[in-house]
Amino acid sequence: MKILKDHTPFVTESGFLFPELEIAYKTWGRPNADHSNTVIVFHALTGHAVADEWLNGFFGKGKLLDPEKHYIICSNVLGSCYGTTGPLSINPATGQRYSGDFPQITIRDMVRVQQRLLDRLGITRIRFALGASMGGMQALEFGIMDQRVEKLVLIATGKAQSAWAIGIGETQRNALSGDPKWRDGYYPLEDPPSDGLSNARMIGMITYRSAASFERRFGRNLQPGQSCYQVQSYLHYQGKKLVDRFDAVTYMRLTEALDTHDVSRGRGSFREVLSRLDIPVLVIGISSDVLYPAAEQRELAGLLPLGHYAELESDNGHDAFLIEFEKIQQLVRKEFPGLNDALPLAPTGTS
Amino acid sequence: MKILKDHTPFVTESGFLFPELEIAYKTWGRPNADHSNTVIVFHALTGHAVADEWLNGFFGKGKLLDPEKHYIICSNVLGSCYGTTGPLSINPATGQRYSGDFPQITIRDMVRVQQRLLDRLGITRIRFALGASMGGMQALEFGIMDQRVEKLVLIATGKAQSAWAIGIGETQRNALSGDPKWRDGYYPLEDPPSDGLSNARMIGMITYRSAASFERRFGRNLQPGQSCYQVQSYLHYQGKKLVDRFDAVTYMRLTEALDTHDVSRGRGSFREVLSRLDIPVLVIGISSDVLYPAAEQRELAGLLPLGHYAELESDNGHDAFLIEFEKIQQLVRKEFPGLNDALPLAPTGTS
Repeated sequence: MKILKDHTPFVTESGFLFPELEIAYKTWGRPNADHSNTVIVFHALTGHAVADEWLNGFFGKGKLLDPEKHYIICSNVLGSCYGTTGPLSINPATGQRYSGDFPQITIRDMVRVQQRLLDRLGITRIRFALGASMGGMQALEFGIMDQRVEKLVLIATGKAQSAWAIGIGETQRNALSGDPKWRDGYYPLEDPPSDGLSNARMIGMITYRSAASFERRFGRNLQPGQSCYQVQSYLHYQGKKLVDRFDAVTYMRLTEALDTHDVSRGRGSFREVLSRLDIPVLVIGISSDVLYPAAEQRELAGLLPLGHYAELESDNGHDAFLIEFEKIQQLVRKEFPGLNDALPLAPTGTS
Repeated sequence: MKILKDHTPFVTESGFLFPELEIAYKTWGRPNADHSNTVIVFHALTGHAVADEWLNGFFGKGKLLDPEKHYIICSNVLGSCYGTTGPLSINPATGQRYSGDFPQITIRDMVRVQQRLLDRLGITRIRFALGASMGGMQALEFGIMDQRVEKLVLIATGKAQSAWAIGIGETQRNALSGDPKWRDGYYPLEDPPSDGLSNARMIGMITYRSAASFERRFGRNLQPGQSCYQVQSYLHYQGKKLVDRFDAVTYMRLTEALDTHDVSRGRGSFREVLSRLDIPVLVIGISSDVLYPAAEQRELAGLLPLGHYAELESDNGHDAFLIEFEKIQQLVRKEFPGLNDALPLAPTGTS
């Protein structure tokens, strides 16, 4: 993973000025002469730039993301805690962490930061951009905001954050702010609101799965040695796992950013805005997605001039995008059969 | 509403002894000579005995619950806070409220308390019993545990609490216990864990509705005069409404009781237990139910010798049972056309 230090000030949509930015990113493969083999991957809520860890099933020879053919770029989003400027970063103006001072940001802010990175890397063409969930929101906004991208693959995302998803996020934020250790986001890092963040994650985990997958995996089995059901133990374990790797203000700001997702905001009607996105877009819905139901992806595809909807049949819920790699690759290959064709690579050493 | 004071000790499945019980109930109509017009209604999680308030669309001349023809009984469940012995009741042994001392109870405990009431009222036959959600769990257990009932109508309930529903309940309980005012359930009534109870209710409200119904009702509309979305304002309002009428330990104990629902527990396999319930049972699933998906009702009906499955087409989610009265009555009339036939009533004054 590399860090790009960008000393040009950055102003968020909300008007907050960052005097400088750090952008964490990782690349795989080599750019060819005309950059026509560049692929951008956008990560989801608690993800990071090391895409081959969480999208490992997409990476490899002959796969959707093939470092022998593609030049793949993934960067950590603005506001996250994996290297790009976020609430845990030091505010140069104060010498302290931003913590509770970190502003509300938008999906478009994230995309503008990614555009800076691509500009600095000299990227002029992008073969395709791929994202699921919050990554899909960025990919869609990127398609609208950036002329370099030629194709989009959007998974389990929609034209805007729905009332349903806003409501779920609100209960997660309540879990954070209701923890007495929350302290408006100005908690010491050695004493964070862990219980609140854990419960926020537990609420999230449920919406990322499905009743059928929980039944298959846990049923009513009791956790050995404990007086609780396996599903309770599993959810608490998942909560703790996030607490060990993530930050509470970061979670707060990123879930707030999800709520800002609305491609029509300030641009006209959904129909108008999306009719202008005239590149081929494959929109994949997951049949059992509770959080971003497949109807949203079907609707989005229908609003795009070159949109195509494909449904991933899976009972794994929203998280199927992190599980059903092979099925997703089949859907992408069917719609975009040339995506992995041989591409002229640059001579070794140009990257 | 009446209160039955029952001085026979009651021992819960968990072994807790109540020296006496109070059972709050309400009746409508008059029993006929052979009690063949008795109908039992079981309420859901935060419901109460005054069924014509929350099931108002079922009550009335010619309707499913017709006081001119039926003798309808609804009682508040054990562990609730609407008149029947629960965490807010005075423990005769201490002279104080049970509060955190109130034991874990089961759906079967609730049913055994209801059986006491019916015994005391001299009920010998029950034309049908009706319940949705937690009320459906009781109605199903009642059919298994009691020989008096002739037909069952079960809505949005299943053979057991699923891993999915247990998981959702766990996040609600975390919301309660994470509130610093929770104090293990021993909080003063003038300073209850309101924020925790509110968030527990907000989580619940989401699972009682559906993405489609939220989208139709709220979309991405902002709440006038506030810097939030309508759906956020709505959910906080619903949380506060519950705080004003309900108690936190009660909510804790009743959600724990939901998790005990499992008709097979201690009785054999689901198939064996349900094959012995040989009365006609109409099981209604709601097409958009997120909490107790329709597949659970379809499965339950299939395991019952005289089970019939009907699906309520609605985008209102789980709460459709409190909204779609007319559609539900049509489904019941179709399966049980004689339910509202003229019944010989007892002469006036016998009730």
